Amino acid sequence: MKKSYIMTPGPVPISNEVLMEHGRPLMHHRSPEFSKIFIEVTDKLKKFMETENDVFILTSSGTGAMEAAVTNAFCKGDKVLVVNVGNFGERFKKMCKTFGLNLLSLDYEWGTAAKPEDIEKLLAQNPDIKGVLVQHSETSTGVINDIESIGKIVSKTPAILIVDSISGMGASELKVDEWNLDIVCGGSQKALSAPTGVAFISISKKAWGFIEKSDIPRFYFCLLSAKKYLQKNPPQTPWTPAISIIVAMNKALDMFFEEGKEQVYLRHKVNALAVQRACEKLGLELLVKNPSERGVSVTSIIVPDSIDGKLLTKTMRLKYGVTVAGGQGKLQGLIFRIGHLGYVNIFDVITAISALEFALKEQGWKFELGTGVVEAQKVFYENNYMQM
Amino acid sequence: MKKSYIMTPGPVPISNEVLMEHGRPLMHHRSPEFSKIFIEVTDKLKKFMETENDVFILTSSGTGAMEAAVTNAFCKGDKVLVVNVGNFGERFKKMCKTFGLNLLSLDYEWGTAAKPEDIEKLLAQNPDIKGVLVQHSETSTGVINDIESIGKIVSKTPAILIVDSISGMGASELKVDEWNLDIVCGGSQKALSAPTGVAFISISKKAWGFIEKSDIPRFYFCLLSAKKYLQKNPPQTPWTPAISIIVAMNKALDMFFEEGKEQVYLRHKVNALAVQRACEKLGLELLVKNPSERGVSVTSIIVPDSIDGKLLTKTMRLKYGVTVAGGQGKLQGLIFRIGHLGYVNIFDVITAISALEFALKEQGWKFELGTGVVEAQKVFYENNYMQM
Repeated sequence: MKKSYIMTPGPVPISNEVLMEHGRPLMHHRSPEFSKIFIEVTDKLKKFMETENDVFILTSSGTGAMEAAVTNAFCKGDKVLVVNVGNFGERFKKMCKTFGLNLLSLDYEWGTAAKPEDIEKLLAQNPDIKGVLVQHSETSTGVINDIESIGKIVSKTPAILIVDSISGMGASELKVDEWNLDIVCGGSQKALSAPTGVAFISISKKAWGFIEKSDIPRFYFCLLSAKKYLQKNPPQTPWTPAISIIVAMNKALDMFFEEGKEQVYLRHKVNALAVQRACEKLGLELLVKNPSERGVSVTSIIVPDSIDGKLLTKTMRLKYGVTVAGGQGKLQGLIFRIGHLGYVNIFDVITAISALEFALKEQGWKFELGTGVVEAQKVFYENNYMQM
Repeated sequence: MKKSYIMTPGPVPISNEVLMEHGRPLMHHRSPEFSKIFIEVTDKLKKFMETENDVFILTSSGTGAMEAAVTNAFCKGDKVLVVNVGNFGERFKKMCKTFGLNLLSLDYEWGTAAKPEDIEKLLAQNPDIKGVLVQHSETSTGVINDIESIGKIVSKTPAILIVDSISGMGASELKVDEWNLDIVCGGSQKALSAPTGVAFISISKKAWGFIEKSDIPRFYFCLLSAKKYLQKNPPQTPWTPAISIIVAMNKALDMFFEEGKEQVYLRHKVNALAVQRACEKLGLELLVKNPSERGVSVTSIIVPDSIDGKLLTKTMRLKYGVTVAGGQGKLQGLIFRIGHLGYVNIFDVITAISALEFALKEQGWKFELGTGVVEAQKVFYENNYMQM
C-alpha cells in the first residue's frame, strides 16, 4: 500500500468532490445543460479574479492563455516590456519574439522579484511601450511580484498590463479591477485544484481597444471569435471545449468560495511559511532570500553541494510517494521545488517535510530527525492554525 | 427517470470503462507513471492511424490540430489548395487566409464529395501548389471524401496532403502510410469515444521537410517544440497536457483494438446504413444524394417544409433525452444530423430512430409508427448484425 502526494506547483492535489464531478458522464457542449454550467463557471471565474471584465475559457494549458494575450493584444513591431524574473518570464520573451514584437526586457536575477520603480523608469524612458508583461507568481523560482504597484504604474500610461497569474491566483490575493490589470491569465490545474487542460483569460476595456486593432494572425486563440460565441444565446465557445474539466472547475470554484477567499489566502500563507521555516531549520537554503519576495504557491530550495538533488526527489517520490518538482531552465539540477498551492492542508505539509527529512537522512545530511516537522508544527501552532 | 443519449457527431457516447479511467485520481505530467501512459497512447495512436510517422498529442479541440497543420507546414504566401465540401472546409479556408497563405479553393456543393480528378487537374495547372487540405469525413454534411485516391494524386507531386480526419478516423478506414497522407488530424471526442479536450496529429517525413522551412509564427502549437519534448527521455509534451483525457484515451484505444479495427468499421457501416434507410423509409430526404458519398459517422437529414427543425431536435432532446445536432454554417435550420460514430450500437440507433418517429408524429408528419425502427431492424438482420 502506497499513498501518493502531489506537492508540485501544478498539477496539484484534487479533492474527491472535484474528482467525482470531473468523472461524471459528459453532456454535449452545445446542450442547455452544459451552457448552464459554462455560464456559471464564467461568472464564478470573474468573482474568483475579482473582475467585471470579460473572461474567456480556453481549452489549452496556461501557455495557451499567455499566447492568446500576446497574439490578440498587439500589432507586429509593437514595443513591449517583459519583466523577467524566471523561466516563465523567459517564455513571455520567446513568445514576443516569435510573434514579431519589439522586445524590451527587464531581467532580474532568478530568485528575486521585480522592482516596480524600474518599470516606472523604463515606461517613462520609452513612452512608446504598448504593453508590460509580467508574472504574478513566478513558478520556476517561487517569487511573487508586487502586481498591485505595477498595476498602479502601468494604468497611468497608454500601455496595457498583461499578468500571468497562473500559479498566483487562488493562492495569493488578486484584484483584477482594483489593481487595473488589463489581461490576466489563469489555469485550471493550479490553486483552483481542478484537472489539467483548461486556461482562462480576462480582458479589460482598455485591452479590447488593443485587440480590435491587433494584426497578429491567430485563429484557435482568437478572442474576437471567443467574444462572438460568448455573446450568443446561450453563450458558447467557438471550438469544442474540454467539457469534463469545466464541469470540475465549477465544483472547485464552489469549494473556493465555501472556504472563503480570505481563509484560502491565509491557509496558503501559513502553509508556505511552515515549509520555508522547516527547510531553513533543516539547514537548507531557500532560493528567494528576501522573505517579502517569497510567494505562497511554491518554495524553491537550493540543493546543497553534498546532496544529489535528482536522487533526493526520486527517493521522495519512489520510496515515500511524495512528488516534488525539480528546477526549470537554468536552475535545473540546482534547486528542487515544493508546491503548496491548492487543495493542500497542514498535514500535507507535514507529510512532505517528513518525507524530505527521510530522503535527506539517506544521503547523510546532518540534522536531528524531526527538526523540520516540529518547526512546521510550531508555525501552525503559533498561527493558531492546527487544521485548515 | 430520464436516460440520456448523445447521438451527435462529437462529442459521442463514452463507455463506463473509459469514463472510470478518466475519473481516476490524476498523476503529475512529468512523472514516470504518466510518461508510461503517454508513450503507450502515442504508440497506440500510430497503430490506430496505421502509421509509422511521428504522432503528437495536443491539448486543444480538433481545430487546434488543424491550426498546427496550417501554421507549421507552410511559409507565408505559399499557394495551397483547400478542397471544400462543407463547414470544416470553410474553416481550413479561413485559417489559410488568417495565416497569410495564397489560397486556391475547390468548392463543392454541400452534400457532395470531392472529385479526385478535379484535384489532379488543379495540381497540374498549378505546379507551385505547396499543399492540399481536405476533410476525410466532413462533419457538417456527412460526406466522406476518397482520401486514398487523393493521396495517390498528391503523393506524385511536390505538395503535401493535409487531412482533417477528426470525425473520420476510427469510424472509416484510414491508412495514413499506405495512402501517403502527410499530415493527419484527429480528436479525442469522435470515433475514439474519449472525453473532449485533446487533439492529435501525424507528420510524415515529407511534411517535416516543410515544417523545418516554415516561417509562420507559432508557439503553443509549434511541432518543432513538440518534437523536441517527444525526444526527451522519458518523452513529454512541452506544455502541461490534459492528463485525464489522455489517460481515458489509453483505455478507449484498448477497447478499439479489442473490438478489432475491421469489426469497428463494419459496425459503423451497418449503423449508418440503418439510420439512412430508416430515415428514407420515414419519407425524409438525406442531404447526401449519392450513397457512395455517404460517410458512416453522421447522417444529415433535410428538414421537410412542413416540419419545424428546431422544435424537432428540441423535442427529441427534452422529451426523449436523445441529443442530435442541427445544421452548421449555411445549413443551419435546413438540416439536422444524427451522429452514429464511436461507442454506438444497434440499440442506440433504434432508440434514436424511435425518438425521431415520436417527435415527427407530434408535428403531424404522415407515416406509420414504427416504420423507421422496423427498417433499421431489417438492416441489422439482413447484415446478420443483431448485436454489436
